Amino acid sequence: MTTVLEDLYPSRVGGVCELHERTDPVVYTKGPPARGLTADQAKQFDRDGFLVLEGLLSDEEVEALETEVQRLATSKAVLESESAITEPTSGALRSLFYVHMVSKVLDLLSRDRRLLDVATHILGGEVYIHQSRINLKPGFAGKEFYWHSDFETWHVEDGLPRMRALSASVLLTDNYPFNGPLMLIPGAHRTYVACPGETPADNYKTSLRRQDLGVPDDATLTRLVEEHGIAAPIPKAGSVLFFDSNAMHGSNGNITPYPRHNVFFVYNSVENTPQDPFSGLPPRPDFIANRSDFTPLAPETPDYPSLVIS
Amino acid sequence: MTTVLEDLYPSRVGGVCELHERTDPVVYTKGPPARGLTADQAKQFDRDGFLVLEGLLSDEEVEALETEVQRLATSKAVLESESAITEPTSGALRSLFYVHMVSKVLDLLSRDRRLLDVATHILGGEVYIHQSRINLKPGFAGKEFYWHSDFETWHVEDGLPRMRALSASVLLTDNYPFNGPLMLIPGAHRTYVACPGETPADNYKTSLRRQDLGVPDDATLTRLVEEHGIAAPIPKAGSVLFFDSNAMHGSNGNITPYPRHNVFFVYNSVENTPQDPFSGLPPRPDFIANRSDFTPLAPETPDYPSLVIS
Repeated sequence: MTTVLEDLYPSRVGGVCELHERTDPVVYTKGPPARGLTADQAKQFDRDGFLVLEGLLSDEEVEALETEVQRLATSKAVLESESAITEPTSGALRSLFYVHMVSKVLDLLSRDRRLLDVATHILGGEVYIHQSRINLKPGFAGKEFYWHSDFETWHVEDGLPRMRALSASVLLTDNYPFNGPLMLIPGAHRTYVACPGETPADNYKTSLRRQDLGVPDDATLTRLVEEHGIAAPIPKAGSVLFFDSNAMHGSNGNITPYPRHNVFFVYNSVENTPQDPFSGLPPRPDFIANRSDFTPLAPETPDYPSLVIS
Repeated sequence: MTTVLEDLYPSRVGGVCELHERTDPVVYTKGPPARGLTADQAKQFDRDGFLVLEGLLSDEEVEALETEVQRLATSKAVLESESAITEPTSGALRSLFYVHMVSKVLDLLSRDRRLLDVATHILGGEVYIHQSRINLKPGFAGKEFYWHSDFETWHVEDGLPRMRALSASVLLTDNYPFNGPLMLIPGAHRTYVACPGETPADNYKTSLRRQDLGVPDDATLTRLVEEHGIAAPIPKAGSVLFFDSNAMHGSNGNITPYPRHNVFFVYNSVENTPQDPFSGLPPRPDFIANRSDFTPLAPETPDYPSLVIS
């Protein structure tokens, strides 16, 4: 007998944009963090829906990761795989999914205690990778990512029942105000924006290039920004930006010569594994939304090692 | 007998991107400014190729100008005129040209001493309007303007012989790092970038929406940015940004709800009036590049009056 979960966060059910209060916690562990975060940092994440940890990785680690990213981004086999998403106009690699499964270095990074400690504290226990990817926003021709909540898509298209996931963006290039850094609406993670429209089959094939569904309308965005403002942190390479699954975020295009490279891991609680998508459609493929391996991540190493393998 | 001027700044003559040293002065008046600018500000313009004068207009003046801009932007006759340029996708008004000819308020603004004193000092004597326009970069869907030097176009397509013009951008909305503010490469105004390609007839009909010609290649932009960096001033409404005709500039798109509105005047020296375009093609129409009235601008009022007409 299959238990069908109640849809706590309906969206794309044909209506207009609607705002609902979030019913899930943001930080699931009660009490101060044992390691990885200070109590103030945990509070900040709870309040804003995001947190930057500056300089978490060393310069050597960043260099090793960037080398690995470049190896992947220039591999013919990688560029021809379905997990490679290219820029609409230039054809350059924009995103590559499933990277923890194809790269030993990035697999190790996903289980690095500096990331895992944060994820397990915030999500209240064991976690696994729902999605991993490299984002390469090139210089000169990097296109925008429009405003959205990841959770809205993960719920509707992937069947994640609750807001109990987060993203860790490991920054491999320096961010500037003008090279299209991630923008967030601090505090808006407490509001769920039910979006208009209905999801067509295989929506992911176009939405990864240009998102038209699951995005708030202008009036809703104006209201959220009037209430909360916009934050656009510009951390240096080696910093990690953690953000809640329901953080409202987006980024502008980039005509500067400065590219933006990062590695993304989506950590999901093992108590929040995907159900049938709430859209009623077949789920997205595993390389975008893992639904075949929920083994809790175990740190490969007992303490904070260097990622540089000598 | 027609005197054909030597082309001191050839571009789009079929070659590759080439860098040449500017042969013209930046600030034409020797000695300190009599009014409108401090000596340090004049030096700054000379060094960087741009200058921001913060809070030059009062809140009341900004409000009056914004009202006038809105009146023009919502006028059916205006939107249907050839001087109205709309966004490629949304159809919203992006630029409106020739505004000093159709608006008494903007005509007065173009002759306001606070602007004129700066223009006449820098350009060394009497000036007239080569081009005027309103730029409305809307929120949510404002597209980028790619890197370019205005002079390159004014020289090739309009026939301005020398670098003896400047733009004054009167800012009517607050600028933020994330709503697509103007970016400049400080110091790059001393380098002329001869661009590849050749100009097709009626190039302006597409180039005002999306510029493909007269833009430097990636390697050239990288070289200029490595040498000089990028400046992206974010002045408040009421400030005026002056920049040299050969300043290398551009702006990213804007997905935030914050629009960017400004009024642009291009002041040109009366000793630098347009010749036959160096492209050999017919000139652009008057509404984009005035070649019918070179009467020196005279300040309407003896001192700094309010633009608010009561």
